Amino acid sequence: MKVYPEPMVALMEEFGRMPGIGRKTAERLAYYVLRLPEEEAMKLAHAIRDVKQKIRHCSRCFNISETDPCGVCSDPRRDQNMVCVVEEPKDVIAIEKMGRYNGLYHVLMGHIAPLDGVEPDDLTIQNLMARVKREGIVEVILATNPNLEGDATALQVAKELEGANVKITRIAKGIPSGSNIEYVNSAILADAIAGRRELR
Amino acid sequence: MKVYPEPMVALMEEFGRMPGIGRKTAERLAYYVLRLPEEEAMKLAHAIRDVKQKIRHCSRCFNISETDPCGVCSDPRRDQNMVCVVEEPKDVIAIEKMGRYNGLYHVLMGHIAPLDGVEPDDLTIQNLMARVKREGIVEVILATNPNLEGDATALQVAKELEGANVKITRIAKGIPSGSNIEYVNSAILADAIAGRRELR
Repeated sequence: MKVYPEPMVALMEEFGRMPGIGRKTAERLAYYVLRLPEEEAMKLAHAIRDVKQKIRHCSRCFNISETDPCGVCSDPRRDQNMVCVVEEPKDVIAIEKMGRYNGLYHVLMGHIAPLDGVEPDDLTIQNLMARVKREGIVEVILATNPNLEGDATALQVAKELEGANVKITRIAKGIPSGSNIEYVNSAILADAIAGRRELR
Repeated sequence: MKVYPEPMVALMEEFGRMPGIGRKTAERLAYYVLRLPEEEAMKLAHAIRDVKQKIRHCSRCFNISETDPCGVCSDPRRDQNMVCVVEEPKDVIAIEKMGRYNGLYHVLMGHIAPLDGVEPDDLTIQNLMARVKREGIVEVILATNPNLEGDATALQVAKELEGANVKITRIAKGIPSGSNIEYVNSAILADAIAGRRELR
């Protein structure tokens, strides 16, 4: 006999494709859906559809948004002279949650990773260059991740912006606030010392 | 600013309601859906809808099925004299996977749990009693879980079937095959000794 009814098998397969969801969890989630009142299950199905159908990328900064331009780009209170360049929309979220940055963003939609086939042209670097020229931006803050790919991506963006009349900065690497010098590794410590600042 | 676009928030909330899915995982899954090609996302949405719309409970044994009666109940090669009583459809799956049982099933749809408001009448015990009378069943195997609730449920089913002319058995508790006497706890060991069988 077929062990599970076909629709259950199909749902388990779909759940099993999701990142970090193994076979057992997929099974558990499929049972959860099976037991949900139909109305609740349809809310979940519609939420999935809506994310695909209602969310687009802002044509200016490439952040995800229901509107184009996005809420940040169309907000006149934001500092229009400053652009913070990040890899992913979730980096925008992190910086917005901090609540201390008031400029604009530019989402690269990834980082350079030749082994995964991601070349500079697969990112939105050309769009950033066009913005810098067109919008009279004064400072570009490179806020890609402080790791191999993020650093390489930041360098590439800086290189492509070389001729433009714009200040280019990179977010600071160093010892995370709240941690102990004793416990951080040498790479972090080296960054902290190389990035030291004069106190007065 | 609103941190996430509304459809992303809605999807994260729906994912976050699922068992074992925390806030961070829900966020990760929502991003996964956002990045899926639309066709793939709709496959997931439709799989959820199909589980709710195409799967029903067999009116005879209450197992989940696309058909009524289910594949087991409508299979003439299955032993019609024997009914294995389980708590949940997933218990049927487990026993079918074993591949050594050839009788029918009866899914109680839970176990007695007064603290959670599940009384005997919330289960399909009455339907089982009607089946035993109507179908001329010879043996009822009580395969509820070997724990407090499962044992109580088995006792209750046995009690309600008292007057019926049917053999009632309970699956064996004991030391799991492949384990060591040294490592099992006293409750398991006590079950193993109480359930000992004559070798010849």
